Amino acid sequence: MKPSVTVNLPQGRSYPIFIGSGLLDDAQFWQAVVANRQAVIITNTTVAPLYADRLRSKLSRAPLLLSIPDGEQYKTLATYQSLLDDLLDQDLDRSSVLIALGGGVVGDLAGFVAATYYRGVDYIQVPTTLLAQVDSAVGGKTAVNHPKGKNLIGSFYQPSHVVIDVATLQSLPQKIFIEGLAEVIKYGIIFDASFFEWLESNAELILKRDFRALQYIIQRSCKIKAEVVQDDETERGRRAILNFGHTFGHALETQTGYGTLLHGEAVSVGMKLAAELSYRLGFIDINVVDRVKRILNLFHLPITCENLDPTQVRAAMSKDKKVIDSKLRFI
Amino acid sequence: MKPSVTVNLPQGRSYPIFIGSGLLDDAQFWQAVVANRQAVIITNTTVAPLYADRLRSKLSRAPLLLSIPDGEQYKTLATYQSLLDDLLDQDLDRSSVLIALGGGVVGDLAGFVAATYYRGVDYIQVPTTLLAQVDSAVGGKTAVNHPKGKNLIGSFYQPSHVVIDVATLQSLPQKIFIEGLAEVIKYGIIFDASFFEWLESNAELILKRDFRALQYIIQRSCKIKAEVVQDDETERGRRAILNFGHTFGHALETQTGYGTLLHGEAVSVGMKLAAELSYRLGFIDINVVDRVKRILNLFHLPITCENLDPTQVRAAMSKDKKVIDSKLRFI
Repeated sequence: MKPSVTVNLPQGRSYPIFIGSGLLDDAQFWQAVVANRQAVIITNTTVAPLYADRLRSKLSRAPLLLSIPDGEQYKTLATYQSLLDDLLDQDLDRSSVLIALGGGVVGDLAGFVAATYYRGVDYIQVPTTLLAQVDSAVGGKTAVNHPKGKNLIGSFYQPSHVVIDVATLQSLPQKIFIEGLAEVIKYGIIFDASFFEWLESNAELILKRDFRALQYIIQRSCKIKAEVVQDDETERGRRAILNFGHTFGHALETQTGYGTLLHGEAVSVGMKLAAELSYRLGFIDINVVDRVKRILNLFHLPITCENLDPTQVRAAMSKDKKVIDSKLRFI
Repeated sequence: MKPSVTVNLPQGRSYPIFIGSGLLDDAQFWQAVVANRQAVIITNTTVAPLYADRLRSKLSRAPLLLSIPDGEQYKTLATYQSLLDDLLDQDLDRSSVLIALGGGVVGDLAGFVAATYYRGVDYIQVPTTLLAQVDSAVGGKTAVNHPKGKNLIGSFYQPSHVVIDVATLQSLPQKIFIEGLAEVIKYGIIFDASFFEWLESNAELILKRDFRALQYIIQRSCKIKAEVVQDDETERGRRAILNFGHTFGHALETQTGYGTLLHGEAVSVGMKLAAELSYRLGFIDINVVDRVKRILNLFHLPITCENLDPTQVRAAMSKDKKVIDSKLRFI
């Protein structure tokens, strides 16, 4: 099967992204990807009943299944440690392959486990939320949160494959589907004006979860993300542009407590705040701010959030990874 | 200052190894290495009173000092987590540099912290034991132990510099100095017959800790290690040769409990067992086994260890990272 997108990296770290409908049920495909290796499916309690058995039955060697509770609040060193304990209890060795089946939390956590178990084992990202499909599953950022801030502990460790079954989006609750659109819109804003216009014109189709429309926006998003990652794998420079809306976004998430505001929702509010800040600094025209607000509204994404304490948001922002030498950098 | 050895790696990961006497006291040298970055010295309670203040006074910006208890039993996820907490409490950002000042435990732990704090910050290895100077400080293997086995959690993450002050060896207890010689002898056995002969002929000088002899064996060991690491950074193939004696060695350490047998002592016993196994398998002559035993004796290294339960050693070996697909590989 031909990859939809390839992430080209040096030293054997390149990997294919497969995007299609029904990939989870394609035994031949999985046989080609996993072969006869011992696999471990890492997933959560929401995703497991939907897809774990379907995937499990496609693997020739019975895989282990490790299921964590669902939610950003479990993306911790404690969960990380319990996954390591489970792998060691099951005598998993260095030739095993981990399969991250779920959203961003599962992908980031399983990726960090893969990065550090026996100093690194192969892992496959199988994102089942739109947010993970267009963003977190691609690029090898792995992490856990810390009470002091999001993703403060982790590493850059690329997956061996990314497998996106677009059909999984049909089962997503509306709110979770919508938050993923924030990252899609982000690509339109920062990289690709024609994509932005396409999104403006096709909002209805996308919100109806039309398969072709979804396949198109996922493929286009993955291609943009792959290009940025190829240029700057460990975010020393250009990759930071992907953080548009995230400096405010992370601070909002930290301050409101993980779980109150979804990541995509926080990014949406963050993009609106970043656009306003850019306007006030004289970088952009007020029309651009309005257009950003309009597309977020069009996709039912939030642009404000209640009960914010500006002082606390500022304090949370000072812990952002983008702080270099005590100076905060905005995109 | 010209590096004594350079580890050549792709993508900006090359780094210099400086070997000399008095480097800890050379303010100009440290100014060149650390410049104006915020440094954090990670050390242990034994090394701190000897060298931490001396190093601290050479840095232009007052560095933080984090001191962990001395001993392999503290090379755990718990200590790792407490170091991360400390760094976050002190608001250390991504441009900071960690300095691992101590033996292998400090280096492995601080390296793992550097690899995963903010998804990776620079770190400098300043090994103060012979074992760390000739082995663990070079090559970017970072790790913590797990009750199930040594170094099971970690990553490959190269330091930005390795700084070896040979003068620190004068303060080492004899047992700790001697165990380091096990790794030096290992290089002679597996790579370099003329180095092996040199070691046989100069045992007295080395055991007297003659500065020139030490400088020579450290430089030669680092050069061999650098060459192997350059060929195979993440131990997919040839680098595994460095594990000679370590498959038995790690199992002995796990089974006797960390701290009973020093790492180098376990490697010494392991090399003798590996030589005997090779002889029984018909790979080498009995004379080679005798010569290995003789040089270990010459340097007062142990070749047996008491109260071993062969079944438990075998069980501990099955958890070795060198296990691939349930098959144990010996060097």
